[in-house]
Amino acid sequence: MASLRTLYAADGNPPALKTNMNVDFVINYRIPSDAPAESEAGFTQLIEALTKAGLASEVRRGVDHTSVLVFVKTGSTEFESKPPEKDVDKIFQEEPIVDAERLRLVYLLLTNPKNEGGAGITPKTGQWKYVESIFPLHNHGFNRKWLKQWSSKYVLNEEDVDQIRNQFGEKVAFYFAFLQSYFSFMVFPAAFGFASWLILGQYSWLYALVNSLWSVVFFEYWKKKEEDLAVQWGVRGVSRIQLPRTEFQWDHEAADPVTGEAVKVYSTKKRLQTQLLQVPFALICLLILGALYLFCFSVEIFIGEIYNGPFKSYLTFLPTIMLTGLVPTLSTILGNLAEQLTEAENYETHDAHEAALTQKIFVVNFITSYTPLFLSAFVYMPFGNLLVPYLDVFKVTAEKISSSEKLTTQNFQINPDRLRTQVIYFTVTAQIVNFALEAVVPIVKRKVFKKVKEVQTEFTHKNDKGDVVPADAPEEAAFLARVRNEAELDVYDVATDYREMVVQFGYLSLFSAIWPLAPVSFLVNNWVELRSDAMKIAISSKRPIPWRADSIGPWLNALGFLSWFGSLISSAIVFMFSGDSNGPGGEPSSISAWALLLTVLLSEHLYLAVQFAVRYGLKQMNSPGLHKERAERFQMRKNILAETLDNDVETKPLPDIPTGEKITRAALEEEARQASIRGHGTPEEAFWQRQQGMDETISIGRSLISKMAAANKTAKA
Amino acid sequence: MASLRTLYAADGNPPALKTNMNVDFVINYRIPSDAPAESEAGFTQLIEALTKAGLASEVRRGVDHTSVLVFVKTGSTEFESKPPEKDVDKIFQEEPIVDAERLRLVYLLLTNPKNEGGAGITPKTGQWKYVESIFPLHNHGFNRKWLKQWSSKYVLNEEDVDQIRNQFGEKVAFYFAFLQSYFSFMVFPAAFGFASWLILGQYSWLYALVNSLWSVVFFEYWKKKEEDLAVQWGVRGVSRIQLPRTEFQWDHEAADPVTGEAVKVYSTKKRLQTQLLQVPFALICLLILGALYLFCFSVEIFIGEIYNGPFKSYLTFLPTIMLTGLVPTLSTILGNLAEQLTEAENYETHDAHEAALTQKIFVVNFITSYTPLFLSAFVYMPFGNLLVPYLDVFKVTAEKISSSEKLTTQNFQINPDRLRTQVIYFTVTAQIVNFALEAVVPIVKRKVFKKVKEVQTEFTHKNDKGDVVPADAPEEAAFLARVRNEAELDVYDVATDYREMVVQFGYLSLFSAIWPLAPVSFLVNNWVELRSDAMKIAISSKRPIPWRADSIGPWLNALGFLSWFGSLISSAIVFMFSGDSNGPGGEPSSISAWALLLTVLLSEHLYLAVQFAVRYGLKQMNSPGLHKERAERFQMRKNILAETLDNDVETKPLPDIPTGEKITRAALEEEARQASIRGHGTPEEAFWQRQQGMDETISIGRSLISKMAAANKTAKA
Repeated sequence: MASLRTLYAADGNPPALKTNMNVDFVINYRIPSDAPAESEAGFTQLIEALTKAGLASEVRRGVDHTSVLVFVKTGSTEFESKPPEKDVDKIFQEEPIVDAERLRLVYLLLTNPKNEGGAGITPKTGQWKYVESIFPLHNHGFNRKWLKQWSSKYVLNEEDVDQIRNQFGEKVAFYFAFLQSYFSFMVFPAAFGFASWLILGQYSWLYALVNSLWSVVFFEYWKKKEEDLAVQWGVRGVSRIQLPRTEFQWDHEAADPVTGEAVKVYSTKKRLQTQLLQVPFALICLLILGALYLFCFSVEIFIGEIYNGPFKSYLTFLPTIMLTGLVPTLSTILGNLAEQLTEAENYETHDAHEAALTQKIFVVNFITSYTPLFLSAFVYMPFGNLLVPYLDVFKVTAEKISSSEKLTTQNFQINPDRLRTQVIYFTVTAQIVNFALEAVVPIVKRKVFKKVKEVQTEFTHKNDKGDVVPADAPEEAAFLARVRNEAELDVYDVATDYREMVVQFGYLSLFSAIWPLAPVSFLVNNWVELRSDAMKIAISSKRPIPWRADSIGPWLNALGFLSWFGSLISSAIVFMFSGDSNGPGGEPSSISAWALLLTVLLSEHLYLAVQFAVRYGLKQMNSPGLHKERAERFQMRKNILAETLDNDVETKPLPDIPTGEKITRAALEEEARQASIRGHGTPEEAFWQRQQGMDETISIGRSLISKMAAANKTAKA
Repeated sequence: MASLRTLYAADGNPPALKTNMNVDFVINYRIPSDAPAESEAGFTQLIEALTKAGLASEVRRGVDHTSVLVFVKTGSTEFESKPPEKDVDKIFQEEPIVDAERLRLVYLLLTNPKNEGGAGITPKTGQWKYVESIFPLHNHGFNRKWLKQWSSKYVLNEEDVDQIRNQFGEKVAFYFAFLQSYFSFMVFPAAFGFASWLILGQYSWLYALVNSLWSVVFFEYWKKKEEDLAVQWGVRGVSRIQLPRTEFQWDHEAADPVTGEAVKVYSTKKRLQTQLLQVPFALICLLILGALYLFCFSVEIFIGEIYNGPFKSYLTFLPTIMLTGLVPTLSTILGNLAEQLTEAENYETHDAHEAALTQKIFVVNFITSYTPLFLSAFVYMPFGNLLVPYLDVFKVTAEKISSSEKLTTQNFQINPDRLRTQVIYFTVTAQIVNFALEAVVPIVKRKVFKKVKEVQTEFTHKNDKGDVVPADAPEEAAFLARVRNEAELDVYDVATDYREMVVQFGYLSLFSAIWPLAPVSFLVNNWVELRSDAMKIAISSKRPIPWRADSIGPWLNALGFLSWFGSLISSAIVFMFSGDSNGPGGEPSSISAWALLLTVLLSEHLYLAVQFAVRYGLKQMNSPGLHKERAERFQMRKNILAETLDNDVETKPLPDIPTGEKITRAALEEEARQASIRGHGTPEEAFWQRQQGMDETISIGRSLISKMAAANKTAKA
């Protein structure tokens, strides 16, 4: 089996990447070896549901004899004279609809409840528990061109982002637009930071001030840009047209006072009470993670700067090992807790749920990312000398362990470079490590797993492969191999990428005064990040469902918070550490508390005043943009109107499905079909004519399932 | 001439108040004795313009032979067969339109430019420089009932505010709604303040905290309430449909990118530059007023607490006299400066202009209202002992004036009660003085002026009165006397009333921790204020033009600012003065600066956090209200649609005015009219039939003018 990476690496345009056979979506349907009958019945229901929703389907062998792949497209040829499919088809033909929009609508057709005209498929739950995943196929022609273009140009423009939007939908496109804007804006602090590093040195007032003002301007600019993009893409306000959550549990039904429809209601009071649990949740996060960091931090200082006993060179790694082991574990546990909490808050819509979850995840991330630096800046540096005596507890422990032998300890001295070293670690080393984890590891992992699986499969099905499951038709083999490949890829989650950038923005806003080269590092990192994220989507992930969005959502608040918080923290850091002395040197008495507080207070209010002014100024200046927006709003309204028509189509009564007359019809058409496969007809046509009608898809699928189940049983026995 | 007050005091329902003769608006047209011809020509144009706009007019003698009153109503009987008036009339009849809405539309008809179908009358400017004022007539039947109701009930409800809205429009109604909400909310801090005063004493932490939280809740509640009211009244968003300013000066014309219409454009960059002048403006205000206050303050302390020489009992009043004389003068000067600055900012719309002006006026008010207390709290109390030696400069001056005789001075000691005394002055005495100035003085002033004028008129026109100007018809005399009375009343400016309340809110939010009885005083004051403001509108002011509004506008920001600023100031005051010692007693060293700053910092952030939580909570809780809103939005859209139709009517081509055939027509109709005046027909009909057609109004008006001009000349000679 050729992996995507090898296909991409190949010169020319391999046939497997040339066509998607007009497939809109692929459903990966699992065949568990312990319940083949149930799975078969479910499969029948699946194809029926698809057909009822006006979708054409084909079935092929899936991945490793444990699943079948159901290929879905709109506008089935079966009911050409019936109204609904024709309408959908007609709309698709009349309006130049972009790929992403088409796929989104088909996905809604697949997943919307049946009473709204959809097929009602909910992967992995209830009736559809064997539906592993529903995913669109990559357009590899586009992907290849995309990656090639991006790797050979320095600056991306609006067109590049538009292309992403057309392929992967607004939700993904907003991430790239944000990252691109952020990258472009980063040029200024990088240049200024570099100059500061040369001329002003670290802990510079001027750098902190300029950096903070920059963050205000960037934040306000992005808010404006985001709105502009939403208007340009015709999606402004779509976040209000919200996708209902199937998991939502309601108290009672009530009539909507506007439309009179029955609406499911959940008491907001109850939800508010649940939301209050966020406070203890945040405290728990702070307590658990804070305690862990404080402990590791103390151990680190004790071993690094006080301890002088045996195994010192090994013991130095102890805190790092502890952190590397425990922080991800705790983060996962707290992440799960956050998920449960959000679940309990019981939101009506996906957006609200996601926003609430994002908020909690941000709390966890905030603590794990910045606590080490907070401890160094606000505990170690100012209070070090006072706290070090308490570290004797480790000494006693260490002495006990090393059988009561009196330890020699170094004379403790505050390490004034510690903070800078840490910042360099977080802004350079960690970014590189992160890149490696994100881009390289999954590929390696997948390769290894695949090899193992292949060997396994070959071993178990050595003899029966050819006989039991029919081999792929030679003209489809390459295509199917590629699809099986895609079916095994991870789901792309844009939230992970946002999180990474937001955390980075936090380092910049809170701590970059410590080491003004940080933005330079970020500039380089983000250039790579833009391209590696593109590669991640194109090669290492399933094609994402092209959801719409009209902003970067809850991350905007996180950015705003970090920008504001930066005005407090960076001013405090600069106040404490600037000057010749390299900080308070472990003695709190060397800091004038009132002056520190006054600095923070003034800095914050200067920040708020500047924010107010920038916001006002931007609001006034862009009147041409506002005019443009108003003009485009007309267009958007037209789009929405057009879409309403689409929805009407979806809710129309569905046609009856012809089930009888199979034999005569099949017999008649069989010949023509066979002819078209062999002779004329494009491969795409051939692909879709292989199974004629729903019933045939069902029967072939069922035979595939039973054969594969039998094969599995034999293999296991 | 009976004043309105005496009419109201009379029992029963005097005929003068019973009817408005169907008059919509009265135009007070001035006849200057030095340019009677010009005034006459202008009058002709006025009547022609009115008639062209489809309005019926009647003319009567005005106030004191120096003006004529032109009575205007829609739906003239003259062109009954012509379309435009009929349409307006029909719409008014078909839809139950409230008085305020009707008057507003008629006012727009009077003042809109001619190319928009209006009469284009702009009082006191250009062609219309002799148009003194345009005002609607009070509905005294309503006013009497209103005042009677309000004086006999304790709590006002929504219906009462609705009534005001129907009579005086949303702009005035929003003030009363705000005042009523504010009054109701005040019950809580009044009760809590009274309890605090009894139990906790002054400078209580708990009181300050509760008071601050209360102000957050009140502010957020009002924002919500305001929106609800706007929806309920069908005016949500009207602030965006803005009234263009005739004074606006544009740079160039450009095509509106949406509609393609030519739009007048003024460079936003230029405006932003002008707006930057607000910073020096605020500094100048602070400098001038601050210096004045500081000077008077120093003199006061010197005389009151140090000086012990001759004339002490007289000299004590010196600072008060200086302040009473200079502050209003300076305020007026700065107010004019603010006006000019706002003029220079050159806004397109009335709303923007008003908001910008309000902002500047607020700065002036903020400084004049709160500086004395700031000086006492943050200069006198903490630094008194350090600064008093500098007051020797006064001693030297005083010695020089009193011919070098050595003065005896008291030993200076900080007066710890000073702050409280001041707060009591501002929250009780000043409120009462203000009430007197606002409610009593204008009435007395007008009475005196009127008496003087009457005597004057009687003296000058002693002989010719009966001959020159025709006397009022006896059936109209009472009505006309009343209208002349109303013509002389002041214009009601709701901004003055808002300012008063906002300044009061500032005392509450910033300084009430000093004397927790302040809210009790405000509660009483506002109960009276609500009623005296009602009386001010009904009796001492012309009926206001019923403008629409969808909020209390720029005052909302002022409230928000004061509420936030209160969290800083009140926490600082409580920190400095709480405890046994009654404050720092003039010694700055007794204050721990870092603790003070930490207190302020924490207080502010607690404030912001609570604000965030309250905002979020309110947003979640009122989902039934939101539903209601959505349902009512449908209704509003309908209203807007209906109004669009009205506007269409206004912009329709106007009918030609018949000018010939006067004699025959007049002769024919004269008899019928005379009959109707003498015999049957209501007084209202009779009033409007006295002058038949435009030409007759013009000729009678001209004769009135020339006669009165002649009379004036004789009198002067």
